[in-house]
Formats: sequence, C-alpha cells, structure tokens
Amino acid sequence: MQSTERLTVIKVGGKIVETPESLECLLDSFAAVEGMKILVHGGGRSATAIASRLGIETVMVEGRRVTDAAMLDVVTMVYGGLVNKKIVAGLQARGVNALGLTGADLDAIRSRRRNPEPIDYGFVGDVTAVNAEMLRRLLVAGIIPVIAPLTHDGHGSMLNTNADTMAAETAKALAGRLDVTLIYCFEHRGVLADGDDPESVIPEITPALYRQLRADGTVSGGMIPKLDNTFAALNAGVGRVVIKSADDIADPAAGTVIHL
Amino acid sequence: MQSTERLTVIKVGGKIVETPESLECLLDSFAAVEGMKILVHGGGRSATAIASRLGIETVMVEGRRVTDAAMLDVVTMVYGGLVNKKIVAGLQARGVNALGLTGADLDAIRSRRRNPEPIDYGFVGDVTAVNAEMLRRLLVAGIIPVIAPLTHDGHGSMLNTNADTMAAETAKALAGRLDVTLIYCFEHRGVLADGDDPESVIPEITPALYRQLRADGTVSGGMIPKLDNTFAALNAGVGRVVIKSADDIADPAAGTVIHL
Repeated sequence: MQSTERLTVIKVGGKIVETPESLECLLDSFAAVEGMKILVHGGGRSATAIASRLGIETVMVEGRRVTDAAMLDVVTMVYGGLVNKKIVAGLQARGVNALGLTGADLDAIRSRRRNPEPIDYGFVGDVTAVNAEMLRRLLVAGIIPVIAPLTHDGHGSMLNTNADTMAAETAKALAGRLDVTLIYCFEHRGVLADGDDPESVIPEITPALYRQLRADGTVSGGMIPKLDNTFAALNAGVGRVVIKSADDIADPAAGTVIHL
Repeated sequence: MQSTERLTVIKVGGKIVETPESLECLLDSFAAVEGMKILVHGGGRSATAIASRLGIETVMVEGRRVTDAAMLDVVTMVYGGLVNKKIVAGLQARGVNALGLTGADLDAIRSRRRNPEPIDYGFVGDVTAVNAEMLRRLLVAGIIPVIAPLTHDGHGSMLNTNADTMAAETAKALAGRLDVTLIYCFEHRGVLADGDDPESVIPEITPALYRQLRADGTVSGGMIPKLDNTFAALNAGVGRVVIKSADDIADPAAGTVIHL
C-alpha cells in the first residue's frame, strides 16, 4: 500500500483576514492544523477601500474586479503586501514558518492575461501553470506557503487572479504528489439543507447526493458554480473538498465534506 | 586552501527601483551578475507619494521616517507589495528565480522596536537576528532573495527598517559561510576625489587611505557615516564593499572598492 503524505490547502476570503479579531482567530485555527498546509487568502474589501481613498474607482463585472493599471498597483500592494505580511508575521509569532508568496515568487503560479472578449477585465490572469514540485519541496522543508491572489505572466507583469481558483489550481497540481484536502472557508458552517437554519449542515455530499440536492432545489443559486468547481477539483485528483466556517478549520469533523 | 563560494549582496535605493526606465536597467544589470546574489531594495519615494494620496503625512526626523500605525500599513504595502513584486516579476521574466522576502517571511530578519527615547520613530525596528543558514540554503538551491526593507518583531508586528542596514546585516550574517561582496548603489560612479568631477572615482580605499581622505577633507559630510558603516561591515567579516552606480552593477572593475 502506498503511503502518501497529506496536505491541506485552505482558502479564506478577505472578510476573515481583514478584520483584526477574525484574523487572530483564523491564525490560531490555522496554526493548529496538523501536517503540511498552504493558506490562500483574499483581500478584496481592503483593496476596494484603499482604492477608494486613492481616488480609484472599483468596477466589478459579474462579481469580478476590473483591473486597470492603477488597480493592479492597488491589488499588488494590498494582497501581496498589506494582507499577506500581516498573516505571515502573525503565523511566525505562532511558531509557523510562513512564507508569503505571489505567483511571481519562485515562479509559483503563472497565468495568461484573460482574453478581452467578451469582457475586458484588464490585468486579470487565468492560471496556466502551478510550480507543484517547488511547492512540494517547500512543504517537505517545513515551510508553510501563504499565497496572495496574484499571479504573473512570465513577461514581467503581475496579474490579478481569483483566490478560489488559485486554491483549486494549487490543490489540483499537488494532487499527484500528495493526498490533498481542499478547504473553502465559508460564511456558514457548511452547505445547509435549510438556508434559514445555520445548524442544518449536510455532513457529506457525493455525486449522487449532489444530483438529488440540485433536483429537489436544496442547492441553488451561487452554490451551484461553487460545487461544480469542487467536483472539477475532485475529478482532477483532489482527495476531498470541505466547505466549513473559518472557526472550524482545525476540527476535522466540522463542515460539509464533498468527495467522489 | 579553503574554497568559499562567493555571494554578492546589492542594495539599491528607492529612486532606481521606482522609475520604470531605471528599474528595467537595474533588472538587466542584476540579472547579469554571476553567482549567488541577494537584492535589497528601498522604496521611500513611493511610500511618501502613496501616503500623501491617502492623506497620511510623512514625518522625517534626521532623514528617517517616523512610522505610526497608518504609515506602517503604507510601507508594508508599498515595500513588501508594490515595489517588491515589480522587481520579482521583472527578474522572473529575465530567468532569475527571484523570491520576494520581508524579514517576516521564513523569519528571515527579526528586529526589536527602537527605544522611543530620545526620538520615538514608532514602528521602526533595529535588526537583532538574520536567519543566515536559511538564506544560505535558498542561495544554494539557486533562489535569489529580493528583500524589502521590512522586518518583524517575532510577536506579530511588522517593523519598518532601513534598507542600508538590512543589506549590511545580511552581508555580515552570511560572511561566516560565504565570501561576501556588499555593493551599495550610489548616485555617482563611486566615491569621488573631486565632488565636482563625476569621473574622479577613487578606485580603492583601505583603512590607511580612509584616514588620509578624512584628514585632507576629500571625504566629508554624509559620506563619513556611510564609510564608517562600510568599515564596520568589513571588520565583521564582509570581504569587500563596493560603492558604485546602479548602471555598473555587473562590471567588476567599476566603482570604489573598500577593503581592509
């Protein structure tokens, strides 16, 4: 029997890392996760706030930020500097040997600027390559990557990239080398059977149950693309995807586990 | 005879890395430097400009930035994000496997917040420890650290730290393990014998010549603390310090070489 080392890739949204109190909780929880781990973070609220103070207007199309040259500077500063270094310094204070990375650092995650048709998002990149072997070597050396939602095009430009996508691509790229669990931190404690009852967490979703939940309308709206992406990650070799609250990161029994 | 590998630590000021044209030149020159190398950069002009646009006043005392909580956020964003990632992406485009670091990343450079007496500089740190063995391992693995002028206190706070000092402390810490050359990029092509003649570069300064140059007034003003720090680095084991123009980084014959 092949024994494969386990890796946990955890994605947390901006809301959690941008509020001092919830950031402290997150860092405590993340520090308690055992074994190899990677944190992928957002930072959109801070970027919007700093941009506004700099007189730069935030334009969102279908929930995604349009990133012109001025906004690229803002997200590079905010995601790669302000948010990333607060997390790294906080983890180091907890004895976690964190290393902040953007996709440019060590050529970790490369992307291609998105086609301007039908919508020109500007300096936004779609991931083309994850340097999985380099990330694996860092993890084996006891280093904990903290990844900001920025990539590079290999020609000298940073590109703004969706944090959910970066977490999924990183998890998929490492799935060939490690037994990967991908955790998406969520506003609720998991996928809910009843949207009005925050305790109605569905403990486990398989492809068969997912078909049923969609058919009976339990799962709808924005949850559908989220779960579709989840199954894409599973089909690409990720062992399991967990949707849970950031408060429950270190509790293996919490949240909704999705697997094939 | 012991064969020791060579390392070049290069410090460049904000002016060079903040202007797109001079940044491109610097990146070409830095990419051409052979062997192990570390880049330490400034970014003060950008920090002042962004702070001003954010309505945060820049206060300098004796040429050093007073760093309150709001200014700490600005320098963390600008040095650790904006400036650092432009350099890293530009080096990656040139085939240099750059890794952006602040002192917090991998616990690379730790500091203690400066005593508020006699002047309270706020969140400013004096270097207490350089993780030399970790930096050496990165270098041996072919990784090129690009260091922003930020440290951490080990208790979760980033601290603003002078880039010249960080370059000197990094060079000194690695001097026991490698044959270290420390290069300070300068507005002139070296230390000048005649301040009005930019071509009058003194090719070599030894302790004996330095005493003479001070006695006859050739070296005066701000150059004295710079050279005093240089000799402190040499006395701590750095092989040689070179003061030269950023344009001449890759030319080993250019600039003023200072050695014991």
